[in-house]
Amino acid sequence: MDIAAVNALPYEDFVNILGNVVEKCPIITAAVWSRRPFVNFTALEAAISEFIDELPESGKEGILRCHPDLAGRDLRGGTLTRESREEQAGAGMDALSSAEASSVARLNEEYKERFGFPFVICARMTDKANILRQLSERCRNERAAERARGIEEVKKICRLRLQALVLSEASNKL
Amino acid sequence: MDIAAVNALPYEDFVNILGNVVEKCPIITAAVWSRRPFVNFTALEAAISEFIDELPESGKEGILRCHPDLAGRDLRGGTLTRESREEQAGAGMDALSSAEASSVARLNEEYKERFGFPFVICARMTDKANILRQLSERCRNERAAERARGIEEVKKICRLRLQALVLSEASNKL
Repeated sequence: MDIAAVNALPYEDFVNILGNVVEKCPIITAAVWSRRPFVNFTALEAAISEFIDELPESGKEGILRCHPDLAGRDLRGGTLTRESREEQAGAGMDALSSAEASSVARLNEEYKERFGFPFVICARMTDKANILRQLSERCRNERAAERARGIEEVKKICRLRLQALVLSEASNKL
Repeated sequence: MDIAAVNALPYEDFVNILGNVVEKCPIITAAVWSRRPFVNFTALEAAISEFIDELPESGKEGILRCHPDLAGRDLRGGTLTRESREEQAGAGMDALSSAEASSVARLNEEYKERFGFPFVICARMTDKANILRQLSERCRNERAAERARGIEEVKKICRLRLQALVLSEASNKL
């Protein structure tokens, strides 16, 4: 779908198609519909990013809390969103060794206990080894820094999900 | 569940249980978890209300756009959330005469065309005749007034959904 097609969508279709570019936060997609028409992919992505940036800190924490744990109960229980399932599987989170799974479970709990939101990382832009290392390292950050870092990761995830749905300038040039 | 039990919930349970008090906007519930402990039901409700009020106007429109049409395709297709289904059924929206259904469909389209968001009303606090009258009348409002009115209705719906989940002071006195 190119940006002209996106701009022509009634809000219901816009939200149905793009509503999960930020995990379980269709309100964000629904809000940026007010900003259409978008001149290009980058403008659409920027509108989402700006909406997120303007939220109070509690709202940013709210976004993070709408994300599932990596290799957590939603993955095991089959209740991940389609997008999350594909992203986690792509990074090997559905095929951890028993030792890796225990380690991730322990670090996820430690992280959530410390920060009050889950560890969020753009799994598509990294690999299993790096995810495990970052989960361990980021547990030691300060809360505000980690909230900001989580939101950066949300934006990376959002860009890739958007690119899967909307032609970007880069793909137009292919 | 009393407010002490609510305050003791980890964010995951808090969002799982209360995440749909504002339709399809778990980010709002997830955000107000940052404000716990709540001294009582009213404080929890107020935290949600304040979060909504602090959103930019586009964010308020985003909330409205996460709501289904009354007697619309989600009701017909069985894709309403449980809460919406019960609310719409309670107001007789699932048992409209053919003439009423046509009229509602036409007015919903007119409303959405005019405002860019759906007609939202707290169905539990009214009845079919009043809903049909308001749908017709509110189509003639100004956009800003109607956005504010829709958000008022969202808050009424939220209060009733919260009351079904969390003991309020009123119910404590029973």
